[in-house]
Amino acid sequence: MPSTATVMKLKRPLWNSISTMKYCSSSALDVLRPGDILKQPRIFSISDITEYSKLTHDSNPLHFDLELARNAGFTDIPVPGMLVASLFPRIIASHFVRAVYVKQTLDFRSPVFVGDKIVGEVQASNIRQIKQKFLVKFMTRCFKCDDNVVISGEATAILPTLAVKLVNNHD
Amino acid sequence: MPSTATVMKLKRPLWNSISTMKYCSSSALDVLRPGDILKQPRIFSISDITEYSKLTHDSNPLHFDLELARNAGFTDIPVPGMLVASLFPRIIASHFVRAVYVKQTLDFRSPVFVGDKIVGEVQASNIRQIKQKFLVKFMTRCFKCDDNVVISGEATAILPTLAVKLVNNHD
Repeated sequence: MPSTATVMKLKRPLWNSISTMKYCSSSALDVLRPGDILKQPRIFSISDITEYSKLTHDSNPLHFDLELARNAGFTDIPVPGMLVASLFPRIIASHFVRAVYVKQTLDFRSPVFVGDKIVGEVQASNIRQIKQKFLVKFMTRCFKCDDNVVISGEATAILPTLAVKLVNNHD
Repeated sequence: MPSTATVMKLKRPLWNSISTMKYCSSSALDVLRPGDILKQPRIFSISDITEYSKLTHDSNPLHFDLELARNAGFTDIPVPGMLVASLFPRIIASHFVRAVYVKQTLDFRSPVFVGDKIVGEVQASNIRQIKQKFLVKFMTRCFKCDDNVVISGEATAILPTLAVKLVNNHD
């Protein structure tokens, strides 16, 4: 797998505009609170697209034929949107063992090309305890070149715990 | 790839409640109209989950450890929701060459287990021509046991043509 995916450090949001900011603190992030951000980078390769196609049986030629992609208005081979969006459940699952995905909305705003460095980001926006579990809503975004939002949306997941599992190694 | 996926015949909707029914006819489906349904079946295997995990770097143990899955309330190993949802762009791309995905919402209503026969379905709900292309909104659903909706949502795609490519072979 040629991806250079690594796990970035958790960090608190840097801006003050979100309504949940009042819950944030600068203490070490060991328990998830509204406003907290988790992120991981990924670079997708042609090999990743080939594996995605084999797995999903989706052989859309836009993802294999550069000339056809250019004729369709792309500057390079676009990565399938659902493959890029798989960053979101990956980020959540890697920090919360036994997370169960409930909902996801995806707005594919700009294409992601092979070789682009993408950073997936999930930000807890609402946390509701239901019996012994937690229903957590996340704002989900993928960035290209740090500030260009290529995918935006929201995810909802059921977490058995709000304890954040720190992920420091390559995965 | 152990999937038994085959492509089902296109068919017009059988019910009359959808507002777009007035656009439908019983003629052969060669051009997409509001109300038209495209569907494809799929059975996911443990091998598919392993390949998904390698590709996405998502190693959520719920999808590998039966005891852990049962402790979390599942009766068997659940298939990652985003893997099941990949049926939707596959169905659209296989019938409309050079389709570009724009949006997708996903409501994961019930788990899909390894070995379940799933049918993915997209139904054109709105078609808008923009210059030489078509912005098409689809209702998207996955069924288990014919009538149990396990995933619901909507997709929006840009199609270069409304001509439906018939897909009759295994893919």
